[in-house]
Amino acid sequence: MAKETVTAAILVIGDEILSGRTRDQNIGYIAAHLTTIGIALEEVRIVPDIAPRIVAAVNELRGCYSYLFTTGGIGPTHDDITADAIAAAFKVPIDIDSRALDLMKPFYQARGLELTPARLRMARLPEGAGLIDNKVSVAPGFIMDNVIVMAGVPKVMQVMLDAVTKQLRTGAKMLTRTLDLERPESEIAELLGNLQESYDDVSMGSYPSFADGRLKTQLVLRSIDPARLDEAFEKLRNELALRGLL
Amino acid sequence: MAKETVTAAILVIGDEILSGRTRDQNIGYIAAHLTTIGIALEEVRIVPDIAPRIVAAVNELRGCYSYLFTTGGIGPTHDDITADAIAAAFKVPIDIDSRALDLMKPFYQARGLELTPARLRMARLPEGAGLIDNKVSVAPGFIMDNVIVMAGVPKVMQVMLDAVTKQLRTGAKMLTRTLDLERPESEIAELLGNLQESYDDVSMGSYPSFADGRLKTQLVLRSIDPARLDEAFEKLRNELALRGLL
Repeated sequence: MAKETVTAAILVIGDEILSGRTRDQNIGYIAAHLTTIGIALEEVRIVPDIAPRIVAAVNELRGCYSYLFTTGGIGPTHDDITADAIAAAFKVPIDIDSRALDLMKPFYQARGLELTPARLRMARLPEGAGLIDNKVSVAPGFIMDNVIVMAGVPKVMQVMLDAVTKQLRTGAKMLTRTLDLERPESEIAELLGNLQESYDDVSMGSYPSFADGRLKTQLVLRSIDPARLDEAFEKLRNELALRGLL
Repeated sequence: MAKETVTAAILVIGDEILSGRTRDQNIGYIAAHLTTIGIALEEVRIVPDIAPRIVAAVNELRGCYSYLFTTGGIGPTHDDITADAIAAAFKVPIDIDSRALDLMKPFYQARGLELTPARLRMARLPEGAGLIDNKVSVAPGFIMDNVIVMAGVPKVMQVMLDAVTKQLRTGAKMLTRTLDLERPESEIAELLGNLQESYDDVSMGSYPSFADGRLKTQLVLRSIDPARLDEAFEKLRNELALRGLL
């Protein structure tokens, strides 16, 4: 039986990405991870630290995809407004969560640090949220229905993504076969386009690059059906070989 | 007289970014460039190579911001559908553009290459488009009303962005002052939050990092008003010094 498709979107929350101060390192990481586990990433948005913008994007995206992953805005400072925005999006109250507090207390005590109001802010979670472990800096991420809320700092985001992965429903895995050609893509475009027409269940992409002063092309075939993928790939190799393009 | 704010969004078009095959290198580059020239980037979206998805995003984003910059999908292959999607979004015809053709002909002739149907595809532009120079591989980008359509290959995107910049209306430049602290951000959160309340025209961000086994924080103050920015920055330094946090 064919497995269902499980889809996702990412919402990156952060003025620092939009201003160019910080280069996002999370989108590519999450994208590759989701592809590996069998979740199809279908959209990404980046919005500023403005509550109504976050609320609107969360409500739009969580309704369109199986999962929404957010990054950023769950730290201790005034501009960390993601948890409040999620509570507003779900129309639930938000308060200090005793489970989060129980995790954070011993961590700060062991380091001789006070649980200041700023640190307590990181224990505030929307009512009904499940916790996501944070092995790096303890303050947890959380999952609210199909919305997974993670930190923006890449190392922390990565441990949260690992921690939440076992809870996720996954679907058919996208399989990939690639072929690297020392040709400009315009020389294989027609052949590839014709082949694509015979395989609507195999997506065929062509990615040009310049390296060592030469135009190169990587062809990428993707499908959830291994037999059809292999068939299309062999056909592609044969057609390229026939025309002396391999 | 205060300069108006000029805003922008970026639309990244590409299955390869969503699958994790390719890490986007354009968003951060464009974001930094726009900040430098006085355009405020307010949203980014990444969508797949699916025409109705591109058309919907183009029409939504071009209506919300002064400019929309797109990257990707203007090459010679069947999955390069951006120009057609832009034509559909603007409800105008699309055909081979004689100006684009005049640029491309001598380039290919000089290299002894034929203008195949695939290569001609790159000369197809929506009616009414203005051309954007491409010093790398000649096939032009284009501008259609407030929508700037650029290549996905970073080197090509960068020369197109440079070429189009002189045509852009720009607004007040966002000025920035930063302060690096060897402190976890939770220790400065309250102070920064209080200061933010007195300066609604200066945005104050706090960005944590881990380096050399230590928690660090960079504080970033941003404003279009140099006097207010300096005043807020001096106040911040004084408050931090008073508490022994500098």
